[in-house]
Amino acid sequence: MMKTVDINSDIGESFGSWIIGDDVDNELMTIISSANIATGFHAGDPNIMRKTVESARKNGVAIGAHPGFNDLQGFGRRHLSIPMDELVNDIIYQLGALREFARLYSLSLQHIKPHGALYMHLARDETAAQCFVAALHQLDAGLYLYCMAGSAVWQAAQRLEHPVVTEFYADREYDDQGFIVFTRSTGRLSVQAITEKVLMACLEGKVKTVTGNTIPIRFDSICIHSDTPGALEIISSVKMALINAGINVCSPGMV
Amino acid sequence: MMKTVDINSDIGESFGSWIIGDDVDNELMTIISSANIATGFHAGDPNIMRKTVESARKNGVAIGAHPGFNDLQGFGRRHLSIPMDELVNDIIYQLGALREFARLYSLSLQHIKPHGALYMHLARDETAAQCFVAALHQLDAGLYLYCMAGSAVWQAAQRLEHPVVTEFYADREYDDQGFIVFTRSTGRLSVQAITEKVLMACLEGKVKTVTGNTIPIRFDSICIHSDTPGALEIISSVKMALINAGINVCSPGMV
Amino acid sequence: MMKTVDINSDIGESFGSWIIGDDVDNELMTIISSANIATGFHAGDPNIMRKTVESARKNGVAIGAHPGFNDLQGFGRRHLSIPMDELVNDIIYQLGALREFARLYSLSLQHIKPHGALYMHLARDETAAQCFVAALHQLDAGLYLYCMAGSAVWQAAQRLEHPVVTEFYADREYDDQGFIVFTRSTGRLSVQAITEKVLMACLEGKVKTVTGNTIPIRFDSICIHSDTPGALEIISSVKMALINAGINVCSPGMV
Amino acid sequence: MMKTVDINSDIGESFGSWIIGDDVDNELMTIISSANIATGFHAGDPNIMRKTVESARKNGVAIGAHPGFNDLQGFGRRHLSIPMDELVNDIIYQLGALREFARLYSLSLQHIKPHGALYMHLARDETAAQCFVAALHQLDAGLYLYCMAGSAVWQAAQRLEHPVVTEFYADREYDDQGFIVFTRSTGRLSVQAITEKVLMACLEGKVKTVTGNTIPIRFDSICIHSDTPGALEIISSVKMALINAGINVCSPGMV
Repeated sequence: MMKTVDINSDIGESFGSWIIGDDVDNELMTIISSANIATGFHAGDPNIMRKTVESARKNGVAIGAHPGFNDLQGFGRRHLSIPMDELVNDIIYQLGALREFARLYSLSLQHIKPHGALYMHLARDETAAQCFVAALHQLDAGLYLYCMAGSAVWQAAQRLEHPVVTEFYADREYDDQGFIVFTRSTGRLSVQAITEKVLMACLEGKVKTVTGNTIPIRFDSICIHSDTPGALEIISSVKMALINAGINVCSPGMV
Repeated sequence: MMKTVDINSDIGESFGSWIIGDDVDNELMTIISSANIATGFHAGDPNIMRKTVESARKNGVAIGAHPGFNDLQGFGRRHLSIPMDELVNDIIYQLGALREFARLYSLSLQHIKPHGALYMHLARDETAAQCFVAALHQLDAGLYLYCMAGSAVWQAAQRLEHPVVTEFYADREYDDQGFIVFTRSTGRLSVQAITEKVLMACLEGKVKTVTGNTIPIRFDSICIHSDTPGALEIISSVKMALINAGINVCSPGMV
Repeated sequence: MMKTVDINSDIGESFGSWIIGDDVDNELMTIISSANIATGFHAGDPNIMRKTVESARKNGVAIGAHPGFNDLQGFGRRHLSIPMDELVNDIIYQLGALREFARLYSLSLQHIKPHGALYMHLARDETAAQCFVAALHQLDAGLYLYCMAGSAVWQAAQRLEHPVVTEFYADREYDDQGFIVFTRSTGRLSVQAITEKVLMACLEGKVKTVTGNTIPIRFDSICIHSDTPGALEIISSVKMALINAGINVCSPGMV
Repeated sequence: MMKTVDINSDIGESFGSWIIGDDVDNELMTIISSANIATGFHAGDPNIMRKTVESARKNGVAIGAHPGFNDLQGFGRRHLSIPMDELVNDIIYQLGALREFARLYSLSLQHIKPHGALYMHLARDETAAQCFVAALHQLDAGLYLYCMAGSAVWQAAQRLEHPVVTEFYADREYDDQGFIVFTRSTGRLSVQAITEKVLMACLEGKVKTVTGNTIPIRFDSICIHSDTPGALEIISSVKMALINAGINVCSPGMV
């Protein structure tokens, strides 16, 4: 049984005058412990980034960069075949942009978590993952990397002894190998089902897979996607259940 | 007579596969003392920024951020009527992006110099200038602000005791009030004429105006625009003349 | 008393995965007679444009181009100081993009209505208005231009005998000169108040101004902004009232 | 031996203030018979498009749309994994934008030729090719499609009896299957070698491959890339040689 766990969510994914999902960033900020802040390439813009950093500070939420492919229209969910050194430069650019807003409020960045198609690319492509982690380690050897245990980027981090935070995907399904089954659109998930799934994972270290099997699972942080319909209700329920079970919700930097 | 003077130029203003002007960044880097590096909104991109920072380090050139309006097609030369808090956020974003590339090479940023229409806006609009300098001072109280003496942004910096570097525009003409006469396209300037103009300014503290008068002028840095036709030849000639006159060319951070 | 009137609304102003306002495009399409379709520079994208044209055809709604300044982040509400020939080229580009989707469905464009800051610019700047109308007239001498009666662009159209459709702004207030009082954010307007205002305008040709006076008003089309909170309810109520008063709602091309 | 042949080249691939390659669009326009005009997604902008259409009209050059992936920074050379219906919508948008500039000058579009990574994608991906050609055929059943003989998009066009113009790549090398060997950067090619290669292809219907073999080749148009170093000299030499050999250079729409 875990004594503490982090809850992370993607925040600040509006753009200009537009919103996405349920537009519940302000409410989410009062519940989560770590915020993945969009950095302008797939979502977010300088005004939203500042407002989000300000909100995180007010709520005592740890902040991290959430960089994506340079594709606003596709929300960073369309893969762009970009040479890995160019990809790393795009990430450095975005990371720095967020770090400057943190600097304005005398905050430090806790972590980085790639977004969407970039997350998947770095989970699968070993050379891109190594190239990215090498640059990350050189930039900031203490910046937590949020990732899937066992993924290419996780392995690259192990090799360089770069600190990672592994994730449990509360609103995604697992296959028997412990990988998540990605689908673009998910139906409305039952709040209770997700809450029980998270509790089992935290208390027993186990998750049920799409085939009905039960496999062991280890992680440091629970990820709930803010654009999952009903995200706010889900996160509230999950947090309440964790607290009632005696599990402390806090960011990895606070442990 | 000045004992030392800085030479600054805008560098890294290509974009993707495109170039602008004479494409002489590599050569300019061996001559100038301070580089104003485009930060992606009006020109430049993450790949060019990294290459430019790397080149600056190799050549011992001090680096600064050169942010502009968010208008690639217009090269930051078209004014965008943007609320001043949004404008400041755009600048913070760009400043951070460059600072992260500096961080990658263990360099510090020396300065910031707004670009094009943004430069002019901050030179004229008092409230925008104050809003910008206040944020800048909070972000980095030691980051030199390159500006025109007497401009709105210069005055705002004086009030907050924020360090400035005032500029002499070698390739622009002055009016009798000491302001530069902006024109979008300049004819090919005589290298010798510019060199003599700079020498007179450095040795005697004087400049001839468009009306034929001579007025006193004070400055810390000579600006030569890299997209002025023949920029490389001009900068080479100016630097040689300065050295022959016993004036040391070095960046303000080095003095 | 008017026998027929057009109801126009801005449609297709989402972008990528993001929505704006109440996201009621599908419902609005069943009520309005003319749709101003965003053309990608301030809002909309090729996918949304196609879907919107398809929906308009299904609902028998006349379609027009709704071009804006090239500023997604600012939703076309920030003025960009762009030379007028460049501005006209931006409009031609957007107009053609929409016309091609119309072509795919064997539809003709009925009209053009500039958006936001561009609408205001062409309403005020005489030379820009003339430059725009001249190009428009050359491109398509029969394409209705939606505009404010008396504005610069309306005058330019009169001079070239280019057909116009003048608008009544149901959800904006008027001053004593018959111009609308622009405000970025409006409170939630009373549906009943707007409905009565529209009825008075259509039946008596009069509108109450912000100072409490009543002035005469003439127009061909009622504009209700789709991002006005409660837009759907407003448009439904207005249309019902018009029909009950014996006024036929149809697009100008149908009259 | 061919009696007539088309020479096509990509034109208008500057962007804003930037140029690419040798910046010889004006000179190329006096030599080629068909211009592939960049439509703003990978290169070009509304101002450049208008200027280019104007220049084509003056020089009697046939015009076609040259759409690309939505990736200015990557110049449309980086593959974007985009659903095929979205891809088709991006192409329709760009095609319409150019058609409107043609309309302004009372010109018709002769053809369409996808650019860079999009060209390759449609050459290889059968379902995307079919989806694209189906939409193209519905939009404009007479618009020539420039493509490689035997490619997926060529096959899709055959099936719908959509008119094609097949290309000979003067500045690229062929493999034994008659496909071109793509390389991003080519060394400076010998003008004479290219000229002889084109002559042999036109007079004898043969080309030498990278392995030294000679294979038969059929085509309607000679493509010379305007960003190939020395493009202007190459095109001049090729055209002169063709004329001297009694082969008429004219666009397919003119034959």
